[in-house]
This record gives sequence, structure tokens and C-alpha cells, in this order.
Amino acid sequence: MANCILCKDTLTPQEGELVWRGDDCRVILVNDPDLPGFCRVIWNRHVAEMTDLSYGERDHLMTLVFVIEEAIRHVMHPDKINVAALGNMVPHIHWHVIPRFKDDAFFPGSAWSARTQEASAVSLAKRKELAGKLPQAIRSAIANLH
Amino acid sequence: MANCILCKDTLTPQEGELVWRGDDCRVILVNDPDLPGFCRVIWNRHVAEMTDLSYGERDHLMTLVFVIEEAIRHVMHPDKINVAALGNMVPHIHWHVIPRFKDDAFFPGSAWSARTQEASAVSLAKRKELAGKLPQAIRSAIANLH
Repeated sequence: MANCILCKDTLTPQEGELVWRGDDCRVILVNDPDLPGFCRVIWNRHVAEMTDLSYGERDHLMTLVFVIEEAIRHVMHPDKINVAALGNMVPHIHWHVIPRFKDDAFFPGSAWSARTQEASAVSLAKRKELAGKLPQAIRSAIANLH
Repeated sequence: MANCILCKDTLTPQEGELVWRGDDCRVILVNDPDLPGFCRVIWNRHVAEMTDLSYGERDHLMTLVFVIEEAIRHVMHPDKINVAALGNMVPHIHWHVIPRFKDDAFFPGSAWSARTQEASAVSLAKRKELAGKLPQAIRSAIANLH
């Protein structure tokens, strides 16, 4: 769709890193300074809602979402995982998979809530380092699906 | 788990209405004055993350989530559906399935973001009336799964 930023399929290093691309979807490691390890799974075709997909497509997408959840848990040991498909601003299916920590900037609110605190620079640096291991862990996990 | 409000499994009319209960999960129509039609699918057993469930359990839960999404779309014709499993405050799996409208109190933010506007009383009354049709629509849709 002409005006959809997810259809444009461009990604600057400031926005994040392309981790994996398949025929149907792609996985991004989002560059979010407050939430290292934040991943996004984007359906390649312009579709607004999960129930616009076929049953097989939904399954495929959710399998990937949960593979990424598992990789994030394995690599980063977060206190909680948040999974969400909102799309109010960009109505093109994309899932946020977000490792949350009790000292992160928004905890215990959502990643879209008001800030509640500031994580220490030490915590953030450690998480950023761990997040650097995610692309390889995600690619391996996806490869093992097939 | 002793201190988990979702394990306690109580629900006052102020909080919402129990729409359906199965062996593994239950569906609530949440009483949210800003977001009529807001539904919640709660896993009955105390489990924190989707990837703590078996593959079959995940499938079962996501099938229900998307059945509810479809029922909400059919009954309420929202501008967007939001689907999220956060659990930062209550780490017991529950999915929020939320019909969103361009004039609702939080649009285009998340349902946990700062208020952006106030929907008119007329819009809210109309949506609340439609939401009243959801329990029956959801029960029928779930019955048709079997």
C-alpha cells in the first residue's frame, strides 16, 4: 500500500537490524535504547488484522512469534515477555515481542505507557550486549523449524 | 498461585462478565467505560508465558483469541483490533482483545497509553449496545469450533 511504511520495507540502522527474512514475514531487532532485545515480526503483505490471514498463515506467524519469544527468554532471561499486535498507527500486521525487566523504563506498565523509572546504565549496557546475541539465536531457532 | 488475582478466579459485575468457560481457559467481557467490547481470554492454570505452554495449548489459546477477534469485528466493526499478552502486573497468561475506534479515548495510542481525546457519549452508548451482543456471538462462535 502506497503510504504504508511497513510496505516500503526500508530500515535504517537507527531503526533496527533485519534479523531474518522469509517469503511471508521478516524479523527486526528494534533499536530501542530503553528496551534492548525488542523484536518485531512483520508480515510482508499489507494485511491489517490477524483474522484477515488464512488459518495456515496465522499459524505460521504465531509459530515465528513464539520462536522469537523463546530465543529472547533463552538469551536475555527477562522478568516478563510482552507480545502485542496493535497497528493503530500502521495497520499492517506486525507483532512486538519485548523482553521486560522490573527495572526497565516502563515497568510494570506497557512499553507504550508513561515512563516509571530509569534503568541503570550498567543494566542497559548488559542487556544491550545480550541483545547482540539475539540475531544469531533467532536465525538458528528458525532454521531448526524446517 | 496464592497471590494471583487470576488464579482466584473471582469476577464482580463492576469488573466484567464471564462469557464462556472451558477446561483450559475462560473469556471475559471487560467492563471498560472507554473501550466497550474489550475482551480478555484467561488461561485457567497459573502459567506466565506463552512458551511455557505446550504447542497444542498455544494453538488452542490462539484459536480462541482469533475467534474472539472475529466475533468483535463482526459485531462491532471497529477501526482496528488490538491483541496483546503483557502480564507485567499479573504474570498469569491472559490475552487482551480490544476493538479500537479512531475517536476512542486512547487512539492512536495503545489502550495503556495516555488519553488523547474523549469519545462522544453517543458513540460510546452505541458501542456499549453492540458490546452487549458480544457474549452470545462469542459463545456461538466457540460452539461452532467443536
